[in-house]
Amino acid sequence: MTLEILSTNRSHGGTQGVYRHRSDTTGTAMTFAMFVPDHEAGAKLPVLWYLSGLTCTHANVMEKGEYRAACAEHGVIFVAPDTSPRGEGVPDDPDGAWDFGLGAGFYVDATEEPWARHYRMRSYVEDELPSLILRECPAADLARQGITGHSMGGHGALTVALRTPDRFRSVSAFAPIAAPTQCPWGEKALSAYLGADREAWSAYDACALIDAGARLPDLLVDQGEADIFLGEQLKTELLAEACGRAGQKATIRMQPGYDHSYFFISTFMAEHIAWHAERLKD
Amino acid sequence: MTLEILSTNRSHGGTQGVYRHRSDTTGTAMTFAMFVPDHEAGAKLPVLWYLSGLTCTHANVMEKGEYRAACAEHGVIFVAPDTSPRGEGVPDDPDGAWDFGLGAGFYVDATEEPWARHYRMRSYVEDELPSLILRECPAADLARQGITGHSMGGHGALTVALRTPDRFRSVSAFAPIAAPTQCPWGEKALSAYLGADREAWSAYDACALIDAGARLPDLLVDQGEADIFLGEQLKTELLAEACGRAGQKATIRMQPGYDHSYFFISTFMAEHIAWHAERLKD
Repeated sequence: MTLEILSTNRSHGGTQGVYRHRSDTTGTAMTFAMFVPDHEAGAKLPVLWYLSGLTCTHANVMEKGEYRAACAEHGVIFVAPDTSPRGEGVPDDPDGAWDFGLGAGFYVDATEEPWARHYRMRSYVEDELPSLILRECPAADLARQGITGHSMGGHGALTVALRTPDRFRSVSAFAPIAAPTQCPWGEKALSAYLGADREAWSAYDACALIDAGARLPDLLVDQGEADIFLGEQLKTELLAEACGRAGQKATIRMQPGYDHSYFFISTFMAEHIAWHAERLKD
Repeated sequence: MTLEILSTNRSHGGTQGVYRHRSDTTGTAMTFAMFVPDHEAGAKLPVLWYLSGLTCTHANVMEKGEYRAACAEHGVIFVAPDTSPRGEGVPDDPDGAWDFGLGAGFYVDATEEPWARHYRMRSYVEDELPSLILRECPAADLARQGITGHSMGGHGALTVALRTPDRFRSVSAFAPIAAPTQCPWGEKALSAYLGADREAWSAYDACALIDAGARLPDLLVDQGEADIFLGEQLKTELLAEACGRAGQKATIRMQPGYDHSYFFISTFMAEHIAWHAERLKD
């Protein structure tokens, strides 16, 4: 395994890097962004994972997410993977839609053809990339991990955390797709990647996982009230109801006037990072 | 004059807008970005101008500049114009180079053909756009203006401020082209826009203006030491020397490890905004 450095830039008292590696999981090259605050030799820093939304690569949050100042202040490493496999031989939505295929891996391990070979983003973010970070970034303390994400990546953050309860000390999300089995984006993606049997979908639905007994250590969610996807796609209220039924500790904040964009995400990013940092203390 | 709203997004407790208008000065449509923090009805807020660098539009700093949190905190309006006229009939560098023509107006009023008709960014940022903001944005207090910018826009900020000493209470720059008459970018642009007579260039050279007696109220400059353009194009040392000769108050900070990118700009943006806000208090 070699990690190719595509770029490094000094920023906010740390190093913002972009890295590429050959992924055995997806059978493609994969690119991710990682910010490492300056630290003393031998120091160990907690790791905050950020999973991005539909159409995004590692670059969107790196450019627009405004996370570096807060990560430097709190001494948190920030890792942002891509949202799907890419490259020669990777199939895309047959109609070229932006809500499926390239940029829309939905953090699942596909079982249906032609997706099953490459679309294995669940295993990539749950297993391969953490192992790579552990090997290649000695400052990363994988005993202290948090996870967050936006929209499809908020769905990813919630479901990865619900399925791996010992891995994360802190979980948050920005405008997550809260119940993919009950919205058009999710139904399109899950039926194509996993087939028609809805039983197989429930491992990829935060509300279904909570109803089935999975729990998070705690949860912070911000959701813009002016988000055009709120009613049909995101369904924040179903997450609030599932948390209520389960007694799951959660802070779900509706933010008046805010939409689905990085103008929204960046506004609340520093608060999320502080919230994670508090729970990721040594 | 009508101001067309291209977009508005709520962000960091304010409104990030993108606006387009027909410019009499450039003879084209012009687009700019403006962030207005929430404020009480009738309140007046100071205005900080940001002039962008080569190849940029209003969008680069809007997406990557990380200015909104600090502007909201300090109650400062932030206006980011485009860097050149654009559109049908606007000539570009005949070889398509990125350092001249479109995206590279150098904040001059061109006198040479074929540039003289449209390339009038000096008058646009000095006269037309401030008048437009005064008319269209009642919260903007043009008695309290500051100006900053990056690279070519740092050159713009310095020279606009040096030529209009009563307009700005605060001036700063990120990695400015400090002496355009003495570097390849500047020599190419000024000779094409203004002709071979170097006398005409001196109104567009911060060091020459300071040597000729122009003064700034104060000056803050950040410059990355790892900036690949530092030696040949930016020549920060000439600005420091000119300020020294003139007794011009200035804080010029060399920042180890930082390059010419928005990873650098965003790191020091909040400090610049705080510095301006202190000088723009009511």
